[in-house]
Amino acid sequence: MPTRTALSGRLLYAQSGGVTAVINATAAGVIEAARAKGVQVYAARNGILGALREELIDTTKETRTAVAALRHTPGGAFGSCRYKLKSLEANRAEYERLIEVFRAHDIRWFLYNGGNDSADTALKISQLGKAMDYDIRCIGVPKTVDNDLAVTDCCPGFGSVAKYTAVSTLEASLDVASMANTSTKVFILEVMGRHAGWIAAAAGLAGEGADAPPHIILFPERVFDEQAFLAKVKATVERVGWCTVVASEGIRNAEGQFLAEAGTRDAFGHSQLGGVAPVLAALVKEKLGYKYHWALPDYLQRSARHLASKTDAEQAYAVGQAAVDYALAGMNAVMPVIVRSSDAPYRWKVEPAALHKIANREKKMPGSFLTRDGFGITAAARRYLAPLIQGEAHPPHGRDGLPMYGRLKNTSVTKKLPTFEH
Amino acid sequence: MPTRTALSGRLLYAQSGGVTAVINATAAGVIEAARAKGVQVYAARNGILGALREELIDTTKETRTAVAALRHTPGGAFGSCRYKLKSLEANRAEYERLIEVFRAHDIRWFLYNGGNDSADTALKISQLGKAMDYDIRCIGVPKTVDNDLAVTDCCPGFGSVAKYTAVSTLEASLDVASMANTSTKVFILEVMGRHAGWIAAAAGLAGEGADAPPHIILFPERVFDEQAFLAKVKATVERVGWCTVVASEGIRNAEGQFLAEAGTRDAFGHSQLGGVAPVLAALVKEKLGYKYHWALPDYLQRSARHLASKTDAEQAYAVGQAAVDYALAGMNAVMPVIVRSSDAPYRWKVEPAALHKIANREKKMPGSFLTRDGFGITAAARRYLAPLIQGEAHPPHGRDGLPMYGRLKNTSVTKKLPTFEH
Repeated sequence: MPTRTALSGRLLYAQSGGVTAVINATAAGVIEAARAKGVQVYAARNGILGALREELIDTTKETRTAVAALRHTPGGAFGSCRYKLKSLEANRAEYERLIEVFRAHDIRWFLYNGGNDSADTALKISQLGKAMDYDIRCIGVPKTVDNDLAVTDCCPGFGSVAKYTAVSTLEASLDVASMANTSTKVFILEVMGRHAGWIAAAAGLAGEGADAPPHIILFPERVFDEQAFLAKVKATVERVGWCTVVASEGIRNAEGQFLAEAGTRDAFGHSQLGGVAPVLAALVKEKLGYKYHWALPDYLQRSARHLASKTDAEQAYAVGQAAVDYALAGMNAVMPVIVRSSDAPYRWKVEPAALHKIANREKKMPGSFLTRDGFGITAAARRYLAPLIQGEAHPPHGRDGLPMYGRLKNTSVTKKLPTFEH
Repeated sequence: MPTRTALSGRLLYAQSGGVTAVINATAAGVIEAARAKGVQVYAARNGILGALREELIDTTKETRTAVAALRHTPGGAFGSCRYKLKSLEANRAEYERLIEVFRAHDIRWFLYNGGNDSADTALKISQLGKAMDYDIRCIGVPKTVDNDLAVTDCCPGFGSVAKYTAVSTLEASLDVASMANTSTKVFILEVMGRHAGWIAAAAGLAGEGADAPPHIILFPERVFDEQAFLAKVKATVERVGWCTVVASEGIRNAEGQFLAEAGTRDAFGHSQLGGVAPVLAALVKEKLGYKYHWALPDYLQRSARHLASKTDAEQAYAVGQAAVDYALAGMNAVMPVIVRSSDAPYRWKVEPAALHKIANREKKMPGSFLTRDGFGITAAARRYLAPLIQGEAHPPHGRDGLPMYGRLKNTSVTKKLPTFEH
């Protein structure tokens, strides 16, 4: 190995898993911080697969304006992937390939931007350098709309989907309230959340008090109780005139089955869910006879950069910058996490946390966040959630009325290695 | 009858049918214009039903600030309804009751804010004064997300749902593009539009060119051709890597059946649709094997005041003001309509049009707006649609991160008549 000066070598950045409205703000934080230190950033095309395939993007070819536009552009600018590396024992060849690619392109810092699975991958790679005699520092960078990463107070990406969910709940409820006298009485909004009801909980910010929407939130943390649900829908319609229900996609019955089981699985082996809202709507119609409407925003909720939380966008950028700082300072196997010091006024900072405390763990919603009947959120939940949706971060709009989302050139780095079969 | 001065009597305003993101801007236009002329405005609670039931709201109890807030508040502030008056022959009692209520509260002008059906109701009422020897002037005020009113160049409410649809298509497509390498290849967005594909067409503003999303739009104006659809999905995924489909809820097969027929009907006798997206998704999965996601924003699309078109919000306000001007000038059986004099720069004005030219008619999308294969929009469609989504009209947001939507007191007017059984 050649002798290295303090900052010789390149930094590789990759996005992993489901993208968010603000993951590109993290990318902007990474690239701008590295540029300020004179370090070149490569990005992996389609996440870790780009690293395995040696499909790298040279971000030095992008203008300052293009990089800055990432701060307000949803989706994953370099492509993401759903691909989990196996254990070192099970597939040593993949890890060796990664080191081979790193070595070929003088990658000395690897920043992996994702959720639980990605933190695990980042942890494995951080331990690899020693095992394979290659000096690589690996930093996990938090991102997930699911808000289920351990240690960090919240996850970049969550605040914006939380804001989208609260605002959509409020707006649709105003619509339903107008129509309820002769038309729709029950409105059901299905939101993301396989195992944790963080997004569903955020809908609770739309209103406070028994008569304010959402009247019922269904959390995956609680077994779906059909009788209690129907009784509350009926009582709400009779008292308020209409009822807004927000349902997490991951709710299950007493037998542990997803109400919306689709029977298919994604690349991580997770069930591919979707469609609990129509199941609930049919139930309401059959048992109570109320006219219903239901909505399932799916990707709209996690890509709605036009409605991003300013708090979230700022945190996403900050963890990108911090990750570069940590990497260049020689840290390894850490993740920049959000630390909250005050709810109101909201105060937060970014600190490094050990990846082994984060990888493969899942932050559950505290029991104290759910009301006794399990259909609402408590004051403690409001104190936690409220700051995360604060502030607007409107993207610039063009004269055509559309947000001016950025687009990168994504210039490929010339390959130096033979093709790898994975 | 007592002798009347020019502006003696009250004005009654009612909202009808499905509400929009900007129908309250029309209400603000009505109330502010009437106040400027010293005329008191009553509003009917829950549309025409409030008039029949003598459930009237005294808007003079609302502050200037509360009325001004209507300009940025979605839903229907006084309640709307799905209720169509029968013909004069079939239910003369209802019409007599309306006149009775008007007479009891000195209602001399009636403004009915709705779509095709409501224009028909307004026309009937406009003819009633003479038949029943009561001096009432009736003005229809346009409103519908469906954009299917005759004569007017566009309908207040449409521009905002068009903007929501275009922006959502763009944002979700950026998400899909990031994930397509290992995950979702086909994304299907279902939008409103029973008989006309105006909203679906607006999705076309998200991008231009064969590779830009949406790659396929399915219009109710064209028979759904499964083979052609699947062939285009396949070709798009093979060429671009992914495919965004926008489907109108009202698409039908060659037998004339709705793909999403739910078998239930609303109060106007229309089929209650919803759920063509999962049908298409299942088809894509079964025939092509691609991983899919689908979204069905339902009420979110028509209540998304946070993303309203400035053009639309301004037109909604302007037709409210014009309706008052026409009424107080003694006009009857007219509707203020939008007249376009230029596409670019966009120029429009409001003019009165005869209700009999509008009632019960339906503006179809011109054949020249659809591409030859029926899966996209033409340059002519873009010229028409583009101005309607221009400009942002962000509502003010509170420190809590939510839009500051207004709420009226809606003080009831004391009833003077016996209960009416309808």
